Amino acid sequence: MSHTATTQDEKRPPVVDDRHVDPHSYPEGVAFLDGQYLPMSQAKISVLDWGFLHSDATYDTVHVWNGRFFRLDLHLERFFGGLEKLRMTIPFDRDGVTEILHNCVALSGHRAAYVEMLCTRGASPTFSRDPRQAVNRFMAFAVPFGSVANAEQLRRGLRVAISDKVRIPPASIDPAIMNYHWLDLVRGLYDAYDRGAETALILDFNGNVAEGPGFNVFCVRDGKLSTPSIGVLPGITRRTVFDLCGEEGLAAAATDVSVAALREADEVFITSTAGGIMPVTEIDGIQVADGKVGPITSRVMALYWQKHDDPACSSQVNYP
Amino acid sequence: MSHTATTQDEKRPPVVDDRHVDPHSYPEGVAFLDGQYLPMSQAKISVLDWGFLHSDATYDTVHVWNGRFFRLDLHLERFFGGLEKLRMTIPFDRDGVTEILHNCVALSGHRAAYVEMLCTRGASPTFSRDPRQAVNRFMAFAVPFGSVANAEQLRRGLRVAISDKVRIPPASIDPAIMNYHWLDLVRGLYDAYDRGAETALILDFNGNVAEGPGFNVFCVRDGKLSTPSIGVLPGITRRTVFDLCGEEGLAAAATDVSVAALREADEVFITSTAGGIMPVTEIDGIQVADGKVGPITSRVMALYWQKHDDPACSSQVNYP
Repeated sequence: MSHTATTQDEKRPPVVDDRHVDPHSYPEGVAFLDGQYLPMSQAKISVLDWGFLHSDATYDTVHVWNGRFFRLDLHLERFFGGLEKLRMTIPFDRDGVTEILHNCVALSGHRAAYVEMLCTRGASPTFSRDPRQAVNRFMAFAVPFGSVANAEQLRRGLRVAISDKVRIPPASIDPAIMNYHWLDLVRGLYDAYDRGAETALILDFNGNVAEGPGFNVFCVRDGKLSTPSIGVLPGITRRTVFDLCGEEGLAAAATDVSVAALREADEVFITSTAGGIMPVTEIDGIQVADGKVGPITSRVMALYWQKHDDPACSSQVNYP
Repeated sequence: MSHTATTQDEKRPPVVDDRHVDPHSYPEGVAFLDGQYLPMSQAKISVLDWGFLHSDATYDTVHVWNGRFFRLDLHLERFFGGLEKLRMTIPFDRDGVTEILHNCVALSGHRAAYVEMLCTRGASPTFSRDPRQAVNRFMAFAVPFGSVANAEQLRRGLRVAISDKVRIPPASIDPAIMNYHWLDLVRGLYDAYDRGAETALILDFNGNVAEGPGFNVFCVRDGKLSTPSIGVLPGITRRTVFDLCGEEGLAAAATDVSVAALREADEVFITSTAGGIMPVTEIDGIQVADGKVGPITSRVMALYWQKHDDPACSSQVNYP
């Protein structure tokens, strides 16, 4: 009898509910969307938005450390540059976006945050296939600061694998437009996990090293730094390394970096807004030099975090 | 006084609202998400989902015409193939997904529908950077049938421009995994609009013709059909053209199609689940042959729509 009842219940025709009941949980944070400040659980995008269906969106991520934004001006410059290249418009200028970002962080209460501003193409009410009929949508959010490398990895260095996946070339997607086209990087990451590594580097279309999921890579040889020049994310942390090298009298160049050059380096590190400067001490299961975090890496890491107190590079969040 | 009041009002610190009030409107339809059937206005994805932030998702789109799914088995096969390649799992097998798709269409009431099934990597509650910690999310929806070409364009043929944007190569993103990496296609579309065309074709990395936003392209020369072979969407409509050619004794080949070959063709058409087979009669402002929809294109179009009544290729939606 109960079996029959269950079967009948399963056969009950479905109904359309009014409202989605979301069973998932989200990190603590505050988002801005359609003029409202909202908890992260409410920060959602329509499945019909071109930003999702066609990854037709641009963004930028800035971090807050010790209650201060780091190099927000550079992130805003890059974000507005991407909007222009994608012919998107938002109803805010730089001051307007700055105010929204401050509010997201202040309302979240986070003293260390990962803060993203983004714009999607949007959608038209008719689901038109003409992107010019879509209404562009701006969103921002602040969540707790996250790092590519955890505390242990920062101390002993990351274990990285080089995948044979090829980073989407600039002739297809201009990397100067910050974009969400990451399947190559995600698949590279799975390649790395398969080989027991913690993260991945993937190649450019010439077979040189390009970048990893959300980070640039540097190598040090005979005291000179080098980092891939083409087809890579124009990282603000990467740029900060060049600035620090200039101040410290260290040689640094953007150039081709072969897989061999990376393997033979004295030191290797990666750079990202999500974590700053992070040492790499193992590549494809083989130690980089003696397998310890090198002196130049350590020095640049220290200088990088010192910069966070410099008013020329950072600004206090307007907490209430 | 009122000016002062306004200024004070503007300075009022923002508050975090409980719930998003969505000012946008959406097409009529029904979505499935987290076990619920919902109106399209509720079909949303978290901004923190890897499916949005990293375009880490796969999907398939099938259409319903005259109340019948067309070649649903092929779309399901391709979708489940993509899931496997991306190492995603969903709590439904093919029968389960089939039932959900039927329910979405039946509940929407649409007799002609564009029906999408998709899976995103999801997100972890901690916003971890490890995709293995994300909970994959399946979603489906049915909205009114849409076409790349409107009624007038189907009658007189589309005006297409060839952009110099290069389709993301297979070494970066495997096109056999249906994916949302479309910025190259979107930018090609804007190039086309700039030149007064209605849609775009973009190139492969060898400079041959690849595809357009959501469609494959065929050309006809001396009675023989050809379509690009590499780095393109493995379209079900494209496959159906090959099937029809086999049945009709027409020669069809997947091969390199140069820009010159396309310009010198007797006939050109595009194929997509969104519209079927659609004639192209103008390329970069120059007529294809005599600028009229050609006889082979017309014949394949007619055969394509006839197939929609064939029980071997279509199945009745389970309307209540």
